[in-house]
Amino acid sequence: MADETGFTTMARRRASGAKAGSEIAPELGVGMLGYAFMGKAHSNAYKTLPYMIYPPPAMPRLAAICGRDAEAVAEAAQRYGYARYHTDWQALIDDQTVDLLDNGGPNHLHAAPSMAALQAGKHVICEKPLARNAGEARAMLEVARGSGAKHMVAFNYRFVPAIRLAWELIQGGALGQIYHFRAVYLQEWLMPHQGTAFTWRSDKARAGSGAVGDLGSHIVDLAHYLVGPIKSIAAASRIFLKDRPLDGQEATAEVDTDDAFASIVEFENGALGSLEATRFAAGRKNHQAIEINAERGSLRFNLERLNELQVYWAGEEPRTTRGFHNVLVSEPYHPWWEHWWPQGHLIGWEHTFVHELAHFLDCIVNDREVGPHGATFEDGYRAAVVCDAILESARLRKHVDIIIEP
Amino acid sequence: MADETGFTTMARRRASGAKAGSEIAPELGVGMLGYAFMGKAHSNAYKTLPYMIYPPPAMPRLAAICGRDAEAVAEAAQRYGYARYHTDWQALIDDQTVDLLDNGGPNHLHAAPSMAALQAGKHVICEKPLARNAGEARAMLEVARGSGAKHMVAFNYRFVPAIRLAWELIQGGALGQIYHFRAVYLQEWLMPHQGTAFTWRSDKARAGSGAVGDLGSHIVDLAHYLVGPIKSIAAASRIFLKDRPLDGQEATAEVDTDDAFASIVEFENGALGSLEATRFAAGRKNHQAIEINAERGSLRFNLERLNELQVYWAGEEPRTTRGFHNVLVSEPYHPWWEHWWPQGHLIGWEHTFVHELAHFLDCIVNDREVGPHGATFEDGYRAAVVCDAILESARLRKHVDIIIEP
Amino acid sequence: MADETGFTTMARRRASGAKAGSEIAPELGVGMLGYAFMGKAHSNAYKTLPYMIYPPPAMPRLAAICGRDAEAVAEAAQRYGYARYHTDWQALIDDQTVDLLDNGGPNHLHAAPSMAALQAGKHVICEKPLARNAGEARAMLEVARGSGAKHMVAFNYRFVPAIRLAWELIQGGALGQIYHFRAVYLQEWLMPHQGTAFTWRSDKARAGSGAVGDLGSHIVDLAHYLVGPIKSIAAASRIFLKDRPLDGQEATAEVDTDDAFASIVEFENGALGSLEATRFAAGRKNHQAIEINAERGSLRFNLERLNELQVYWAGEEPRTTRGFHNVLVSEPYHPWWEHWWPQGHLIGWEHTFVHELAHFLDCIVNDREVGPHGATFEDGYRAAVVCDAILESARLRKHVDIIIEP
Amino acid sequence: MADETGFTTMARRRASGAKAGSEIAPELGVGMLGYAFMGKAHSNAYKTLPYMIYPPPAMPRLAAICGRDAEAVAEAAQRYGYARYHTDWQALIDDQTVDLLDNGGPNHLHAAPSMAALQAGKHVICEKPLARNAGEARAMLEVARGSGAKHMVAFNYRFVPAIRLAWELIQGGALGQIYHFRAVYLQEWLMPHQGTAFTWRSDKARAGSGAVGDLGSHIVDLAHYLVGPIKSIAAASRIFLKDRPLDGQEATAEVDTDDAFASIVEFENGALGSLEATRFAAGRKNHQAIEINAERGSLRFNLERLNELQVYWAGEEPRTTRGFHNVLVSEPYHPWWEHWWPQGHLIGWEHTFVHELAHFLDCIVNDREVGPHGATFEDGYRAAVVCDAILESARLRKHVDIIIEP
Repeated sequence: MADETGFTTMARRRASGAKAGSEIAPELGVGMLGYAFMGKAHSNAYKTLPYMIYPPPAMPRLAAICGRDAEAVAEAAQRYGYARYHTDWQALIDDQTVDLLDNGGPNHLHAAPSMAALQAGKHVICEKPLARNAGEARAMLEVARGSGAKHMVAFNYRFVPAIRLAWELIQGGALGQIYHFRAVYLQEWLMPHQGTAFTWRSDKARAGSGAVGDLGSHIVDLAHYLVGPIKSIAAASRIFLKDRPLDGQEATAEVDTDDAFASIVEFENGALGSLEATRFAAGRKNHQAIEINAERGSLRFNLERLNELQVYWAGEEPRTTRGFHNVLVSEPYHPWWEHWWPQGHLIGWEHTFVHELAHFLDCIVNDREVGPHGATFEDGYRAAVVCDAILESARLRKHVDIIIEP
Repeated sequence: MADETGFTTMARRRASGAKAGSEIAPELGVGMLGYAFMGKAHSNAYKTLPYMIYPPPAMPRLAAICGRDAEAVAEAAQRYGYARYHTDWQALIDDQTVDLLDNGGPNHLHAAPSMAALQAGKHVICEKPLARNAGEARAMLEVARGSGAKHMVAFNYRFVPAIRLAWELIQGGALGQIYHFRAVYLQEWLMPHQGTAFTWRSDKARAGSGAVGDLGSHIVDLAHYLVGPIKSIAAASRIFLKDRPLDGQEATAEVDTDDAFASIVEFENGALGSLEATRFAAGRKNHQAIEINAERGSLRFNLERLNELQVYWAGEEPRTTRGFHNVLVSEPYHPWWEHWWPQGHLIGWEHTFVHELAHFLDCIVNDREVGPHGATFEDGYRAAVVCDAILESARLRKHVDIIIEP
Repeated sequence: MADETGFTTMARRRASGAKAGSEIAPELGVGMLGYAFMGKAHSNAYKTLPYMIYPPPAMPRLAAICGRDAEAVAEAAQRYGYARYHTDWQALIDDQTVDLLDNGGPNHLHAAPSMAALQAGKHVICEKPLARNAGEARAMLEVARGSGAKHMVAFNYRFVPAIRLAWELIQGGALGQIYHFRAVYLQEWLMPHQGTAFTWRSDKARAGSGAVGDLGSHIVDLAHYLVGPIKSIAAASRIFLKDRPLDGQEATAEVDTDDAFASIVEFENGALGSLEATRFAAGRKNHQAIEINAERGSLRFNLERLNELQVYWAGEEPRTTRGFHNVLVSEPYHPWWEHWWPQGHLIGWEHTFVHELAHFLDCIVNDREVGPHGATFEDGYRAAVVCDAILESARLRKHVDIIIEP
Repeated sequence: MADETGFTTMARRRASGAKAGSEIAPELGVGMLGYAFMGKAHSNAYKTLPYMIYPPPAMPRLAAICGRDAEAVAEAAQRYGYARYHTDWQALIDDQTVDLLDNGGPNHLHAAPSMAALQAGKHVICEKPLARNAGEARAMLEVARGSGAKHMVAFNYRFVPAIRLAWELIQGGALGQIYHFRAVYLQEWLMPHQGTAFTWRSDKARAGSGAVGDLGSHIVDLAHYLVGPIKSIAAASRIFLKDRPLDGQEATAEVDTDDAFASIVEFENGALGSLEATRFAAGRKNHQAIEINAERGSLRFNLERLNELQVYWAGEEPRTTRGFHNVLVSEPYHPWWEHWWPQGHLIGWEHTFVHELAHFLDCIVNDREVGPHGATFEDGYRAAVVCDAILESARLRKHVDIIIEP
């Protein structure tokens, strides 16, 4: 299974006799846009992967980090070890030490910096959703296609070992025809009792959408990755709380992004699906749960227990005690696990970024295809089309066909 | 909480001194239509309830059982202790020893016998779905309304203790505003590897619909019972296997009932929901799972672990270790449990019928309202309207409004 | 697998053409001692089995019930349909309509009535533990051996379908050599906050022991049934609350039975085990959990989810996604399930008695061996020797060898 | 709760205005003995903590790493970024750039290097078990006491957030009197089908013991940490497979360390416990499961789901739906979580070392007590006494009192 992860070829070469000490892993200068949640997660991954995914496909050099608040970004640079910092994203792109833009900014800062970087010949990994809407995503894709650079959307859940194993079981044909795909992504942090302030995430101008883009794009992408193209969708959405307090003020601002949506989807291969996401599910912290029912078996995954995959084989002899297998995905033969710990010594959420960025570095330095495992800007665009269709269906109150420009 | 179950009033009176020996529980003659799956389940409940739900609201007398195959129905009569048997449902209704028709026949035999019985002044409990479609259900409701008899649809999952507890938490206001209702009902018995033969369930003329009526009607009814009226729906459905073998023959017949559907619903109270059912979910035996997310908490239920209810309270102090409570619904203070065993000594699926029929007997002999806990023919009709709308939305590819005739 | 359940042979004969109507199932008159918890559970089973385990091996006739309180026992007779009642157990045994004594009395009433019944040539099923100590159990065994009657101890958990399946996997050799047996039986009903009054269960003179005999005997018996003879034991025990209120009085009585014990056991076949039981485990309602680790796999069972068995196969190919299988033990090919419902339609705790008593009736009328599936008085005696050894080890503070008289 | 974690005081100071940029975190030179499993886990933690536990109590400088195989240790130095390497542990201790010895060597190399380092005035963190037996551990403790240096045993499970939360609930009095402590630590890697070769772990001369020291010492330490001193123990142990192949050879070597043990323990505070560990539990990868039953509630923990803690409150009002709470220990107010990710974004096994080493660095540079949260050499000695007693009880076949030299 590990053959699927490009960089393990290097590990194998290593194992067969090459000296790590004599290998010169090429260096890539990372320019990080954003220093908050995603900046922290990605920085941690760049720092970890050289010795955990060993030998690494490339050595990421933390060249520069960029943010608006000079003091905060300076501290972030010191904290994570970036060689310098910028307060203007154009400066980050112009920085000659930067080979690779890692765009972890808010949604409205995905397009312009990413396109500028690509046009400057720099590789780009951009946080999800790729853009605020399909049009913006399409523009980014066009630039990416014209650039010759590598491009990737940080749909990190493709890099959970259990999800990769699910992909192998499906794409390798073990499951047969897919009948059902069912995914929910449930959180609770916007509920009234949380008192969450108005941020860019509640502002359509900056975010594009709410639960649809933030959570829905993840499960749309997983639907595409695991099952295939979505053909049509029908949806409804909700804004449960219309006004939120501006941080530290008495005033409130009006929320114009969705708190939640529910949808049903039809796939081109005939499978029937449902996708639902909300930030109003009390008790659900980061609950992304997926179930796939197919001709020869079923799969279940739950992000809050991310080291486990539930697998059912319909053809298993009854006397072998047929039932859902709870697979603790942590054996040496499981995806990426040759790099980690003995079985049952769990990894966490942050490690998805280690796998993801190792993959992207490998694609860059060895000129490999980012797909099918990495999500390209094309995948980001396809997800954006579906996200737009969710909101359109909810507005028009009818099923909407998904039309992907070639 | 037990106040909600009418017949416990009798248990309380008993506890306060009355002698059971001196009480004459009125007798009701039961006429059972059907002797297979539901005939067995209901007969078992009638035989069990007099001593388990003690003292019983009424003594069910097994008057007569009816089926087409004389030999089989004769054996069923002997097996369960029915005083006589009939092979013609009209004879069952004409039988003077029958006070109550229990209609456990196939869907196409729900309407005529039930209406005839009501017109003859007999009480009727009818298996779900009430009818093959909303029109037929409406006709049954009209007759029921005009009859003065008691009428009930056997939506037995309302009588799971954990579901009753959920109702109390919601309707008592503890959960506050409902944001989300999410229900799936997954089975696997029509999958290709099962080799299931063509039966009336795959034949639209007799069944009305497939997963929609058989499984979907259950979760539609629970949505109505727990959350309230559904306002609109959008759906898609599938027939995955077009032909099935006729039992014991080489020939096959064409399936024209749905194997599966997925839908999203909007409730009149603003809640957003999803409903999905299939008989093509490998590994899912009888998996009915419900989740409700509300202002002050969440609930989760799974029929394959029917003695448990998961409850989350958003307002619980963090230091009280806020998290989903796994409530083993088997304490003396839980619904119906005063009648059963010590805590943790689980009850099963069949006991839902004991509760349901005890309730119906109580309504009959004490002239109580069947609702809100028992589903009336009106509830059966409302569920049928939603079921029809599921198929209509799938056909028209648009959201369909639910219109309930008063 | 159903071949293991003797009475299914009849079901099979039936299926192959015999008419139920022409079969005369022999009748057996049941004399029930006790009308509380176990009287209710056993009476329910006798009433249910003739039509659920169909055709039944015998027709139990509820001949007589016996208890000290005339009014209460009269009501119980009426409630369950016993033809008459007695207030003196000798009268129950002398009753010519009684063929079979079902001894559901408190522990100190196990020996004398059971022995008297056996000496009168009546068959006896006695609740567990068989006796207050090994000496008393041995005396009962001697009488049973000399009687020619059938004798059984109501270790009902042997009759959980998942436990029977476990037995088949072990005894059929599928698991290979057993390394570990681990069982806990945890309840909470004697904890201080429960305010539980002093009853015969806290009185050594009447109960013999506390958690050891009540809960421990169950898991000792399952250890014997599933793994084989216990060779030695080391234990400690506790009385956490020394005084309990006498019911309805200010006075208290001193508890001299154990609230809890923990022990380690060595089996004759080399397996290592641990057995633990308590009534002081907050939140544990009726939590009997067993784990078996063996050469070729592992099994796990939890009585609070009694329809499930967890099975792991060490030799399963990794690529078949090796992991614990969660087997919902409710398929037609699972033990006893041909008699119940479609898969996933769960049965409950009470049904263990239906299986158990059907087995005992079958042994009586068809002169079959009660073992290995039914626990005989010999099994009851063996469990009593281990229970005595638990308390002896705790007192002597050393490992105690188990010595079974032949 | 975070007050319990010393270094958060710094985070708080930071939050209240101090500039990280102006703080000079003192540097400590780390000398690592061993480069395999534990060397990797500890090195990763040293590299991660400066930016994740931010601002860090001290900056670990990776001064030197030591191992016998020059080529391998050279590669490890390069991989993790150690400034130099040694092949002789004495050279590591003599290295002037080393302030702190991290002893991750095999058990027989715990005593001599640790004592030499302490005598050289260097701080020492030593992997568990502290020594091969209590005598050796006692000698280490004596040296540690005389040294003035900080000493710690890497019982890393004390640094799982859920375990820290459990400690707070117990030691803060919320649970009241402890009745039961139940811990198992189950693995499968020595089972016959694994074909595991003979290593130092199967050799008593080097390992001291098998499952007892490797797995048992962890749960003994958690028993001490969470409940208090153990007073006596009774145990049995097993070597299931007597001979193992020498790596790459046809010859085998005789195993003289235990594959498994089971024991019961009595605590000084009256609690009753059981401890069990094995490497022969098919399907159990790294299954450390703990249950505590106390006067006011219960706790449950499972290392294979390390972000969760199950909590039951006996005094919770029934109507608040009393039941085990499944607490996802990942909120900002949970131990250490202010340093990590948003709730539900799980951490893994490796992060216990980040917490542990941050604690140890804080103790060193701020001269804090290593206990009660860090395990000192005294704790390591106490665990060793219990481990010895397990094997002694198994040999003598009697309960053994635990005698701790002051």
